[in-house]
Amino acid sequence: MFDTVCIVGVGLIGGSFGIALKERKLAKKVVGAVRREATINAAFQCKAIDNGSTNLLRAARGADLVLLASPVGQMRELSEELASGVKAEAIVTDAGSTKDGVVKECTAIFGQKAHFVGGHPMAGSELTGVENARGNLFENSIWILTPTAETPDEATEKLQELIGALGATPLIMDAATHDNLLAVTSHLPHITAAALVHLFSDAHKEHEVAQRLIAGGWRDGTRVAAGSPEMWRDICLANAPEVGKSLDKLIEDLHSLRAMIETKDGEKLQEWFQSASEVRRKQGYFPRGQ
Amino acid sequence: MFDTVCIVGVGLIGGSFGIALKERKLAKKVVGAVRREATINAAFQCKAIDNGSTNLLRAARGADLVLLASPVGQMRELSEELASGVKAEAIVTDAGSTKDGVVKECTAIFGQKAHFVGGHPMAGSELTGVENARGNLFENSIWILTPTAETPDEATEKLQELIGALGATPLIMDAATHDNLLAVTSHLPHITAAALVHLFSDAHKEHEVAQRLIAGGWRDGTRVAAGSPEMWRDICLANAPEVGKSLDKLIEDLHSLRAMIETKDGEKLQEWFQSASEVRRKQGYFPRGQ
Repeated sequence: MFDTVCIVGVGLIGGSFGIALKERKLAKKVVGAVRREATINAAFQCKAIDNGSTNLLRAARGADLVLLASPVGQMRELSEELASGVKAEAIVTDAGSTKDGVVKECTAIFGQKAHFVGGHPMAGSELTGVENARGNLFENSIWILTPTAETPDEATEKLQELIGALGATPLIMDAATHDNLLAVTSHLPHITAAALVHLFSDAHKEHEVAQRLIAGGWRDGTRVAAGSPEMWRDICLANAPEVGKSLDKLIEDLHSLRAMIETKDGEKLQEWFQSASEVRRKQGYFPRGQ
Repeated sequence: MFDTVCIVGVGLIGGSFGIALKERKLAKKVVGAVRREATINAAFQCKAIDNGSTNLLRAARGADLVLLASPVGQMRELSEELASGVKAEAIVTDAGSTKDGVVKECTAIFGQKAHFVGGHPMAGSELTGVENARGNLFENSIWILTPTAETPDEATEKLQELIGALGATPLIMDAATHDNLLAVTSHLPHITAAALVHLFSDAHKEHEVAQRLIAGGWRDGTRVAAGSPEMWRDICLANAPEVGKSLDKLIEDLHSLRAMIETKDGEKLQEWFQSASEVRRKQGYFPRGQ
């Protein structure tokens, strides 16, 4: 499907992308652009790349497709460097968890030099690094693409085809809607997970036995808090307006619950939990993690 | 171990207790006290009871052990009725998720008529009802007991022995510490789960596609929100002071995060997520639910 694919940042997502491309024979050559020499060896061992380099322009030279699988905070700098040497008509996409800022910046940076199409594979794990990469990471997952009015249809179509070949489902939407909805379905759950861990940490310092009282709800509800702090810092910064808005709504909802508890309003309390229970049940039963 | 055991409220917990007692031959006879006639048949089919009655006193007559496995909000009323007919020297325990109020009330109600020992089996599920009961529900779980200074040692010891025979680990602690810590490890995770579902529900009404953007963090973090609204209403009411205190701390922490996002303070944001990530990783890796 592609001659040469360059993956910038060979961690969990970039590495899994490389393994999947090679396993499914979707590219003749996969080249990894990494920051640290050691990652090249790790990526080789996982069969995620054919070649690797710590020199971005050397790695990307001649590539028909470039995937930026680096933290959102590095996208601009990488794109600026890449724009000077990327092959004409190449497709450049990314795997960042926020889209509006990235798409605006990168579209402007690449201009007519290459076709930038924002992307977000909704796969991942609280595990990080190429050593946790696997070729089936994207199977049965949603992979969002956020083309703009200027994006050539062929570039979007080629990416859709590739995503399908990886076993994922492509979903086209605009970048702003993506950021609005992902704040709710992904970013806020991460924030509450971290806040629950802080609460536990304080209680645990006072009572060591707290550790033995961890319930399933805490275990599952805080799982994602084990993820990369840098990534979540970047997401909060890149999606600040939407995360801020959702956080305000969540705090307001918790304040209303606080008042019901204060006034011991059993009827309102039941309604508060009932409305959540009904909506959650519609989203299907998922057995718990442990 | 016991001649006759009476289970008041044969739902998920009461039913599983009955199945486990019978499978492990820990009681000669298990009698269920239920509110609705239909539950008796369902409990028979699950092999959770030998006899059942909608008459509490008839069901509890002659029992050496009574387990109150009803919602926390009904404990007082049931105990008042039970106290008039329970066998002298019988052990009465409960399976409520909050302890301080229940222990104070029930200890006073039973007085010298029977030995009340508060309990909390930390097992369960967002699934409810005797039809989801299973004999191994308590295996490898913690079962808290909250005896007071007046509780005879023999009553506590007999319950510890029984809990061990069910495959669970008994853990003795005082009722107030239990409520303080469970607010953090169980009640608040439930509250954030429900609040995340509310947030999603609003977004989903505006954008139906939100449903396809559910990430693993949302799925796991909201799992417990599918649970019983009545039970969680009762928990918030019964543990109002501790839930309120923890909720205030959580809201304060979210406010501080809100300020970091507003001021785009990358360093503080990273620290906020880092401290959570470190503590969470120490609690072990648990693969996600789906």
